[in-house]
Amino acid sequence: MTHLGDFEGAAHLRLAGGGEFDVVRALLAEWGDSAAGIGDDAAVVAVPAGQQLVVSTDTSLEGAHFRREWLNHFEIGYRSTAAALSDLAAMAAEPLGIFVALTLTDGDRADVTRLAAGIRDAVAPHGCPILGGDVTRGEKIALTITVMGAAERPLRRSGSQIGDRVYVTGLLGGPGAALAAWESGTVPSELHRARFAHPVARLAEARHLAAAGATAGIDISDGLVADIAHLAAANDLRFDIDLEHIPCIGDVSPLDAAASGEEYELVVTGSEKLRRDFYTNFGLELTDIGAVSDGAPEVALYHHGTRIAAPASFDHFRGE
Amino acid sequence: MTHLGDFEGAAHLRLAGGGEFDVVRALLAEWGDSAAGIGDDAAVVAVPAGQQLVVSTDTSLEGAHFRREWLNHFEIGYRSTAAALSDLAAMAAEPLGIFVALTLTDGDRADVTRLAAGIRDAVAPHGCPILGGDVTRGEKIALTITVMGAAERPLRRSGSQIGDRVYVTGLLGGPGAALAAWESGTVPSELHRARFAHPVARLAEARHLAAAGATAGIDISDGLVADIAHLAAANDLRFDIDLEHIPCIGDVSPLDAAASGEEYELVVTGSEKLRRDFYTNFGLELTDIGAVSDGAPEVALYHHGTRIAAPASFDHFRGE
Repeated sequence: MTHLGDFEGAAHLRLAGGGEFDVVRALLAEWGDSAAGIGDDAAVVAVPAGQQLVVSTDTSLEGAHFRREWLNHFEIGYRSTAAALSDLAAMAAEPLGIFVALTLTDGDRADVTRLAAGIRDAVAPHGCPILGGDVTRGEKIALTITVMGAAERPLRRSGSQIGDRVYVTGLLGGPGAALAAWESGTVPSELHRARFAHPVARLAEARHLAAAGATAGIDISDGLVADIAHLAAANDLRFDIDLEHIPCIGDVSPLDAAASGEEYELVVTGSEKLRRDFYTNFGLELTDIGAVSDGAPEVALYHHGTRIAAPASFDHFRGE
Repeated sequence: MTHLGDFEGAAHLRLAGGGEFDVVRALLAEWGDSAAGIGDDAAVVAVPAGQQLVVSTDTSLEGAHFRREWLNHFEIGYRSTAAALSDLAAMAAEPLGIFVALTLTDGDRADVTRLAAGIRDAVAPHGCPILGGDVTRGEKIALTITVMGAAERPLRRSGSQIGDRVYVTGLLGGPGAALAAWESGTVPSELHRARFAHPVARLAEARHLAAAGATAGIDISDGLVADIAHLAAANDLRFDIDLEHIPCIGDVSPLDAAASGEEYELVVTGSEKLRRDFYTNFGLELTDIGAVSDGAPEVALYHHGTRIAAPASFDHFRGE
């Protein structure tokens, strides 16, 4: 092994002490061909001609975004990476590569291979390489994943038209139910826990929807209603949402599903064309949950046609 | 304010609790026009036609890379950002923008404006915008800065030719002397402390050197000898270094200067042409410290023409 780019620097930090180099070796060994590009002080990334570069960065910190009791090392690596990739899905971009800034405790050394495997398994299905990163010794696990992608015409939060339908992918409520269970000291159902531990970035789905004419899009990291409020604000339009149409996982209620964050499903607006071939292609629901209408930017919730007041927990998301 | 891209997501993290949104507002207020591009789920970055995209990510973590007793919040923001930008200098790239993933404790809230000012002051002289990021609540300050730049032909670690001279920018030894003082419980001189707290990424200098024909380059984050060892490995060549020519700051010895890390000066190889107009343009020394020669990849140290054994502290840097 000759040079590892930024990873190499981490091996010799004066304050951080030794051992990081072993971690880098373990990471690269586990990543194999997924990290074949790592080399210099910085990575050189090719952006396809005629495409725009799309970039986002996301931190997953132990104690803030997950707890050790909830996820094993594989899942921590997987989930952090999939959550970051979801921002590329929100823009309908094709992944070009990721950068991994990893902070580990001394006690995590033995598990670094599992963590690396989780990161690799999150990028590999998307043909996305690991291009660089660094390793730091700390007191909590933290992963800051920077994702880079390319799109000819990135999907934006703005672009919705009056009369557009509002669609959401997948079944909502799993992560919220899992968190509620953990926070109340009980064990979440495997169905709910899997949705928290193993989110899937809807990258191919997003590109399909953008190509089919989606006018705007966002991923559900804050919760369905909260993220639709972002769309309402970005478009300066009202979004009417039918509570009874929200696709719920298991026995989760529509209101809980609408508040559940860290879903990493997509909300898009557009015409009915968007549903054509979607389920056939992806084996995933694309559900019509409402419409874009003329009006002050807000999320108006309806239950079988009757407008209902948004629960207090939704209030601070409105109209920002 | 309507939408803040990834920063917005951070405001509503279920586990992280409230308050992040206030932090984001404070950051954006302080950054002003430097962060004018922040918008969607991900940033859209334009790469100039015919140029290659260069990307690197670097974490600065309290306790690992700095201590609160050593740096104020402005300096923490400034230093973390300048250190990350230095990887673009090592590739002779022109900055396109940075992404800031910030972890702060509750106690840091009052100082976030100073931290933001430090980040801005590190990028502003280079005309480099802040394109996105996120905020997390944690128990230590951490900044993971992802830097993106463009270069027609990035400078690499490899490319050195037998007979090339080896040049270094600036005066070395300050950060090492400051760390040694802090670690021994004394107060570093202001000269040394400033070199640790206020590094300057040699971006314009690097582009000048690349245009003048530099064959390879690296920045000194691990220490002069350690980083030249990386060059030796990348080029599969021997690097002969004259200890007495190493440019030292103040009363630092050449051996201490050669071991001092986190310098963020540049080492480049090439012909004597590189020195032409350099001092005139930049008011910065470019010192000839040795030559590239045929031989197994290692750093050979000389003192007035006599080869000396490398100190034990350099040993593990050799030939990796």
